[in-house]
Amino acid sequence: MNTKEYKLPKGFLASGMHCGVKKKRKDLALFFSEKPGKVVAFFTKNKVKAAPVIVGQALLEKNNCFKAILVNSGNANCMTGKRGIKDTLAMAGAAAALLNVKEEEILVSSTGIIGKFMSMKPIMKGLPELVKGLSQEGLLDACDGIMTTDRFRKISSRVFLIGGKEVTLTGVAKGAGMIKPDMATMLCYIFTDANISHKAMVRALTQSAEMTFNAMTVDGDMSTNDTLALMANGLAENSLINEKGRSFSIFKENLQAVCRELAEMIVRDGEGATKFIDIRVRGAKSKADAKKAAQGIANSLLVKCAILGGDPNWGRIASSVGASGATVDPVRLEVILDGEVFLRNGKVISALARKSSPVFKGKNVLIEVDLHLGKGEAVALSCDISKKYIALNSYYTT
Amino acid sequence: MNTKEYKLPKGFLASGMHCGVKKKRKDLALFFSEKPGKVVAFFTKNKVKAAPVIVGQALLEKNNCFKAILVNSGNANCMTGKRGIKDTLAMAGAAAALLNVKEEEILVSSTGIIGKFMSMKPIMKGLPELVKGLSQEGLLDACDGIMTTDRFRKISSRVFLIGGKEVTLTGVAKGAGMIKPDMATMLCYIFTDANISHKAMVRALTQSAEMTFNAMTVDGDMSTNDTLALMANGLAENSLINEKGRSFSIFKENLQAVCRELAEMIVRDGEGATKFIDIRVRGAKSKADAKKAAQGIANSLLVKCAILGGDPNWGRIASSVGASGATVDPVRLEVILDGEVFLRNGKVISALARKSSPVFKGKNVLIEVDLHLGKGEAVALSCDISKKYIALNSYYTT
Repeated sequence: MNTKEYKLPKGFLASGMHCGVKKKRKDLALFFSEKPGKVVAFFTKNKVKAAPVIVGQALLEKNNCFKAILVNSGNANCMTGKRGIKDTLAMAGAAAALLNVKEEEILVSSTGIIGKFMSMKPIMKGLPELVKGLSQEGLLDACDGIMTTDRFRKISSRVFLIGGKEVTLTGVAKGAGMIKPDMATMLCYIFTDANISHKAMVRALTQSAEMTFNAMTVDGDMSTNDTLALMANGLAENSLINEKGRSFSIFKENLQAVCRELAEMIVRDGEGATKFIDIRVRGAKSKADAKKAAQGIANSLLVKCAILGGDPNWGRIASSVGASGATVDPVRLEVILDGEVFLRNGKVISALARKSSPVFKGKNVLIEVDLHLGKGEAVALSCDISKKYIALNSYYTT
Repeated sequence: MNTKEYKLPKGFLASGMHCGVKKKRKDLALFFSEKPGKVVAFFTKNKVKAAPVIVGQALLEKNNCFKAILVNSGNANCMTGKRGIKDTLAMAGAAAALLNVKEEEILVSSTGIIGKFMSMKPIMKGLPELVKGLSQEGLLDACDGIMTTDRFRKISSRVFLIGGKEVTLTGVAKGAGMIKPDMATMLCYIFTDANISHKAMVRALTQSAEMTFNAMTVDGDMSTNDTLALMANGLAENSLINEKGRSFSIFKENLQAVCRELAEMIVRDGEGATKFIDIRVRGAKSKADAKKAAQGIANSLLVKCAILGGDPNWGRIASSVGASGATVDPVRLEVILDGEVFLRNGKVISALARKSSPVFKGKNVLIEVDLHLGKGEAVALSCDISKKYIALNSYYTT
């Protein structure tokens, strides 16, 4: 991995450091745009929301122009009441003063343990150094600063042309299902120098998230801090991308590719995961039905276990689809595993003996289900579950 | 365990044997009522239903009077198409001929592997011996005949007075979450000699199931064969129990106790389970919300792991309630673990250090959540998850 491969878009700087919220690893990150950037952000749907999520949502209701995103890891600042809100605002205020911008131009995120007040001292002490460290090469340090239990960095970058102008999209993410007590967050920030309307950003990010971040599952648990943000500063100087047309399509396609790559990395980094599961459902009565079926398969513990064991157990897959709430006609159901048809028209097709079958033996597994009832389609990204998941989530020390 | 403790109600006989669907263990069971019994049955809501479930539902739409229930284990007769239906009817027909009753007076259940045609030969060969073996003492053999991966028998019995007459309720069940490839079924049959109207039976069983079988979860997967049946032959000769009044209350209370005991046994027998989790949610905005919250806690892998590790991790519980879809106000949320308040009005109360805390260290764990938003209440029964669950469900041989 080198910084050249993953460059920040024009006008963006980043910085990352260890300030002392965590014992040793980097725990503070800053992303800064020289020109104010339009921001679109989606937050967790969990009713229990961390303080920075509450503050961020309120800010975005009033304004969608920001200069920087400040993130700490090691503490989620969640279930911390009024003091938590005060701490988030203090972080934004201190960073704003150092950057010489307004407090409301800083978006703050936190990830880490739930139910503990923020260690404000090390953050406040570290901020001047963090701001001083801002550079185009700071991307990797910033990426390290947002990580908690991640086993590897998650960065994805695309460079493409819009009307002859070079546009860059670069995203960083953290998340690996849930490891260690209360650690439970997916954070993703995508930066672009594209000149794009706010409406077009909302549309592109909504559609991209649908097929990627909203389709992935590691253990079915939803975090209190999940945040996905897209920031665009327009410095590529392309003619404005609106909600329609060819330039929108190009932008969305690249945004979706970045989201997909980051989502895949998060799933692959799932705790104790050994295999990546690509789930594609088609032929459902409706899109909502397709989603139910895909999520039903993705979240089935029995399916995850079968894949860990390398068993093309189509019965468990059919059963999880049947239990998903989607309309299913067992007589029309088709199940294809790693390209091999196992069930068609409700009849068993493949005579492959389970033990000797090559199906589900690789690191990447493909489950295709056709309900043959309509045109609804959906995808889901999942991973298997191993004994390591149980160990990581139960026998931790606190 | 002795047969005296668990006697069948008046007029009921039972029998169990090994016929050869399975290699060694008993695989065939018959329950017979000398006088035709009224039957109320609830079946799986999975859209993929086994042949005996399809046949049973059709029978019960036309008629609710039965003479016998025939059950095989070792094969679920599911995803077996028309041939599966024919096999179920052939089983009922053969048993009916031997018992000298009509085919439509026999309810058939199957449990075991999915997607394999029934081994009809051993069943047909075994049936005469099974019928010959019918006796009041046959209860334990019959109970063994319906078991698959169960580690222990599940029987519950109650004797009580209604209008001076002795009434007996005896139930048997099988189920242990899901072990082994495709084994995935909860079966429960409850027999009573009570004289009770069909409407009263429906009402009592609906209300009892709500708080027991419908509240339990082992791994969130729903089987293709789940069946709960109540059969009443009236031989206690009490004056008819209708939908209301004191005798209905007594009957329902006892039925619910039998259901609760059986449901607890099934959860305790969850694959690799080491602890039983009793979940009680109150103060929800509605009953539906309370149920969502209770199920959200019950199905959270992170909560299950924390309990395995003996960690009173209230953060995970609060987060799972927040993610459940129920209306939650974090500032009002109260979390009580094994009687110890950990969170009240959104503030951390207990200063118990996790490691040294006695909370969540026993075999029975109690989670109470009060949302302080209304009067909605619900319960859920769950168990923890251990590495053994993963091992049992992945590294099986087929």
